[in-house]
Amino acid sequence: MTRYDFGSDNTAGMAPEALDALIAANTGYARAYGADETTARAADQIRQLLDADADVRFVFSGTAANAIALSMLAQPYEAVLAHQAAHICTDETGAPGFFGHGVGLIGLPGFSGKIDEMALKACLAEPVVGHRQPPGALSLTNATEYGAVYSVDEVRRLIEPVKAQGLKVHLDGARLANAAVAGFDLSEIARVGVDILVLGGAKVGAPATEALVLFDKSLSRRLDNRLKQAGQVASKARFLSAPFLGLLESGAWLGHAAHANNMAARLAEAVTTRSRFAIAHPVDANIVFLHMDEAGHAAVQAAGFACYRFDDGSVRFVCSWSTTEEAVDELAEVLAKV
Amino acid sequence: MTRYDFGSDNTAGMAPEALDALIAANTGYARAYGADETTARAADQIRQLLDADADVRFVFSGTAANAIALSMLAQPYEAVLAHQAAHICTDETGAPGFFGHGVGLIGLPGFSGKIDEMALKACLAEPVVGHRQPPGALSLTNATEYGAVYSVDEVRRLIEPVKAQGLKVHLDGARLANAAVAGFDLSEIARVGVDILVLGGAKVGAPATEALVLFDKSLSRRLDNRLKQAGQVASKARFLSAPFLGLLESGAWLGHAAHANNMAARLAEAVTTRSRFAIAHPVDANIVFLHMDEAGHAAVQAAGFACYRFDDGSVRFVCSWSTTEEAVDELAEVLAKV
Amino acid sequence: MTRYDFGSDNTAGMAPEALDALIAANTGYARAYGADETTARAADQIRQLLDADADVRFVFSGTAANAIALSMLAQPYEAVLAHQAAHICTDETGAPGFFGHGVGLIGLPGFSGKIDEMALKACLAEPVVGHRQPPGALSLTNATEYGAVYSVDEVRRLIEPVKAQGLKVHLDGARLANAAVAGFDLSEIARVGVDILVLGGAKVGAPATEALVLFDKSLSRRLDNRLKQAGQVASKARFLSAPFLGLLESGAWLGHAAHANNMAARLAEAVTTRSRFAIAHPVDANIVFLHMDEAGHAAVQAAGFACYRFDDGSVRFVCSWSTTEEAVDELAEVLAKV
Amino acid sequence: MTRYDFGSDNTAGMAPEALDALIAANTGYARAYGADETTARAADQIRQLLDADADVRFVFSGTAANAIALSMLAQPYEAVLAHQAAHICTDETGAPGFFGHGVGLIGLPGFSGKIDEMALKACLAEPVVGHRQPPGALSLTNATEYGAVYSVDEVRRLIEPVKAQGLKVHLDGARLANAAVAGFDLSEIARVGVDILVLGGAKVGAPATEALVLFDKSLSRRLDNRLKQAGQVASKARFLSAPFLGLLESGAWLGHAAHANNMAARLAEAVTTRSRFAIAHPVDANIVFLHMDEAGHAAVQAAGFACYRFDDGSVRFVCSWSTTEEAVDELAEVLAKV
Repeated sequence: MTRYDFGSDNTAGMAPEALDALIAANTGYARAYGADETTARAADQIRQLLDADADVRFVFSGTAANAIALSMLAQPYEAVLAHQAAHICTDETGAPGFFGHGVGLIGLPGFSGKIDEMALKACLAEPVVGHRQPPGALSLTNATEYGAVYSVDEVRRLIEPVKAQGLKVHLDGARLANAAVAGFDLSEIARVGVDILVLGGAKVGAPATEALVLFDKSLSRRLDNRLKQAGQVASKARFLSAPFLGLLESGAWLGHAAHANNMAARLAEAVTTRSRFAIAHPVDANIVFLHMDEAGHAAVQAAGFACYRFDDGSVRFVCSWSTTEEAVDELAEVLAKV
Repeated sequence: MTRYDFGSDNTAGMAPEALDALIAANTGYARAYGADETTARAADQIRQLLDADADVRFVFSGTAANAIALSMLAQPYEAVLAHQAAHICTDETGAPGFFGHGVGLIGLPGFSGKIDEMALKACLAEPVVGHRQPPGALSLTNATEYGAVYSVDEVRRLIEPVKAQGLKVHLDGARLANAAVAGFDLSEIARVGVDILVLGGAKVGAPATEALVLFDKSLSRRLDNRLKQAGQVASKARFLSAPFLGLLESGAWLGHAAHANNMAARLAEAVTTRSRFAIAHPVDANIVFLHMDEAGHAAVQAAGFACYRFDDGSVRFVCSWSTTEEAVDELAEVLAKV
Repeated sequence: MTRYDFGSDNTAGMAPEALDALIAANTGYARAYGADETTARAADQIRQLLDADADVRFVFSGTAANAIALSMLAQPYEAVLAHQAAHICTDETGAPGFFGHGVGLIGLPGFSGKIDEMALKACLAEPVVGHRQPPGALSLTNATEYGAVYSVDEVRRLIEPVKAQGLKVHLDGARLANAAVAGFDLSEIARVGVDILVLGGAKVGAPATEALVLFDKSLSRRLDNRLKQAGQVASKARFLSAPFLGLLESGAWLGHAAHANNMAARLAEAVTTRSRFAIAHPVDANIVFLHMDEAGHAAVQAAGFACYRFDDGSVRFVCSWSTTEEAVDELAEVLAKV
Repeated sequence: MTRYDFGSDNTAGMAPEALDALIAANTGYARAYGADETTARAADQIRQLLDADADVRFVFSGTAANAIALSMLAQPYEAVLAHQAAHICTDETGAPGFFGHGVGLIGLPGFSGKIDEMALKACLAEPVVGHRQPPGALSLTNATEYGAVYSVDEVRRLIEPVKAQGLKVHLDGARLANAAVAGFDLSEIARVGVDILVLGGAKVGAPATEALVLFDKSLSRRLDNRLKQAGQVASKARFLSAPFLGLLESGAWLGHAAHANNMAARLAEAVTTRSRFAIAHPVDANIVFLHMDEAGHAAVQAAGFACYRFDDGSVRFVCSWSTTEEAVDELAEVLAKV
């Protein structure tokens, strides 16, 4: 039986600030389809957070947000450049191809989910031929699937050669709050040339909502028609934006991420000093990957700690806003013994 | 300024039973992507309500639910038969064509949103030719966009000739609770041959969630892959199913619909006896349509009652779980005077 | 048994000039995928014919050419404005929605296949709302499905309000040669603002090939990738372009159309003076529509003349490059008697 | 300047038998859209060739034929298993995803374009999870892109585990004639469980036409609607089927392939005995791949022999129906010297 869940940051519930805002938004009538005041205020909070002008919409899932964003940046006969372990490549059931009518994905290598700069440039240097899907856009993820955090400089070095070819850039920010806490300056996102950001809600304490942030407003033409057709417009839109409003106005969006990162650091510290397991990836954010044999993994699970073996063969432990010091310490205890 | 909103049944908030269930579901960890207990219990409630075995999934919006359902029933080179005023034809921005990769829509006539049986049969009798999209499925809506309610017999007479050709049937139940209260026997839905039902949540008091109900389980193969790719799987799925659970377990799903229907009947009665406006469509469910000149419409709006002129030229007044007797009586008062 | 086929202009074979050019092109090796000399020369001929710079590609079918063109001009969440009897609306099995990923069609009224200017303007004047597909492009057809020919002025009056909203324009020229012979100045097509023209080959004597002509070259980016993905690039491309080269260099492209138009005029003249049947649409090009009862239609068919009852209820007689005076005179004889 | 083209088998023109049949078919009127006699006879020839009942259609390009076939066998939320060097993976600009609305491709390893049996089975053994596209169909190519030919037994061993999971099978037969000449028994294709075959025309001497062969006739429902919507129905269909008719009735379909295979064998023999270059892949069909340094490649090209460096780094020499002994001998001479 699971006593503490380190399997993912989406097995936790809503954070109190998100729930409180939901309840507060549930008063009287509100205009439907996003024309309500809660939605306007939440969008303002996001623009303030990012220190940038942008068109903001709240959608239901990260998969949809990413796929719709990519369909705005690359044509069906083009491909999106992404890390080969990016969520869009490995965990979204081909949604980019579905929403993008066949748009391709080119998986690039690189340590811990960060795209290797040389590999990117080599790909961009290939001639465009009619019988292949040439690069149409770049997709970055920060923090990465492996819990590493790009610096602004690293991001800039990847974006520059892409922009030099006139291509567009998407940033998957499902764990952007964790990256921000780790030092990634949010106000630089617009400035380094990201065209569309998916700003994460669920993993930091919202129920089921992500924000689509368009810095390049030329992309926003008839955006409401696009989202409606794609099944991503809520009639009672206030209940999608309210959790963001609550998390952002209260500071909890960053605060909860800071807590999650701290819990991961605490776990990593304990593992390094006390256990026989090696850490597989930089613990920049809220996730710890451990090289573990099957016996070790089984023992940890048997002790009541949910955790999964990941695609690279290591075992992933994710901390969230709801992870307690007690849980981390008990886990560390178990890890030290097995 | 709007004092009372009769514009739609999606401008009201969450009903108390939905909110309470959301709060109750927000306890501890839960398995993600629909494998949680709340979701299982809500699905059971729906099977019980419909007195039928079925595969149930909770998705984010009615537009997505309808479009995905239709993509399961008709091929891109076929068309869906629907009333020309059906929501899928007039209010979903071509979502069936987007999710169905070009699937067509054939709009059929009929009073008050009910498909005319003769028109349907005439359409089915046309030969299949290669250069047109032949009928691939039938889509019904109960209650209709014009607030009329099909009887089970009426539905059966429309479904029979369709099934005789081996075609499939979809039922848009955005306002199914209102139809049920008006006498439509829910346990007959599976028996008369509906293959996929979209069971409405938002209009009866849920936040932003509808249920996809597959009576024909052969359609469910790899359904989770399909929904994930279509951006309609919530990581924190319990927050989509919880409102259904709360509304259904408490009886409020039907209770609120009964209230809404009663409010519409109360309004219709007052309009008939006291105002100069004629009723445009049968008031079977929770909506009243009035033939109103521009002056009358303007006067009602000026008095603080939100209401819209609809596609057929009449003015629509929608009652919901949150509509009060006081609001109806005040509206009736205004209508009697203008 | 059919002695003379007036059913369509695609039941005739290749014109001699098309076949001769095919044979001439069948010499030695040629670069594949459109990089051959025959293709370059045919594209030059088309630019010369239209007195305009343009990117030209040769594709396999008019349905594909139209649908791909529209996918370049309108987004999935938009609709194409077209005459309700346009080929794209009635005879292409929803191809625009398939290639355009759900793009809609708005059918406009108007006599004899010409779009009514007032109806077009009324449609353009409607506000853009999120839940409908707003106009994204205009599609015209010249000559129309009913054999009428727009003047340049008529086309200009339809294009102007569309361009004023920043929308794009497609011209289906399956029977453009017939329109040209009837006085439609081809050199005005680019000047009045058409963005993409589909230039007909098959109906004027080519085997199975149409030309996609892009006056707006900003649309041509990665066009070869787009066409390859859409299954419309021939490896042995010379055999698609050669028939165009043969027809254009020899003058037969216009010459055969002039012959077809003359045959239609000859038939119309005979019908008017000698038969009891009324002409249903202006005989501007190569088609004659007659109001005929079932007995008359049956008698004509029984006499060996293939002809079809069309969507508007009249019977269509199409002349082609291969229609002989003898065939027309025999048909006129039969029509005079039945 | 190119004296002899070994770059591809699509730079040659039409074989005489194909052209003669085109000319023969160009007589009088013929029913449009595939209802003509030439098309019926060509389909019969194909059924006879394959010793199987099947529905046959003639389409314009191999890319379209493959992509449409795959869209009939796998759903958008599934993936097609194919060799990672298969034409559908590397040379069709993502057409399977475009026609299949996002259907994925899983590239499998194996020598010389043949899928490795162990890799296939490992892939099939993976559990189906909602967030990935599970295998939906298998695509084979015979002869492979690397000129190797599967035996019937090899094909059977790959198909069996796929069929055991209820999945479907596609065979890309762009060079099936070359495989047949090399000993692949065509009458076994239907028996081993291939559901749809794409039978190559262009590479063996047709202009631009391939045949879609459906052994599983349950897949043919409304096939003409499907093909019309996909832009793959010729109005003058006789000109697509006539080349097949001419090649098959005359025996040239196999005869030309035999000649091409012989030329490749002659080249391989000469290379092995007289040149310093090693052969990179089995020369089972009509292609020879050589390990060549840049200097060698440049020298051969400079001598007037078109040939390309392929994806695996070797240089490809393709023989066709039009390759002469003289050309091969001259090439061998050059290879012996550089």
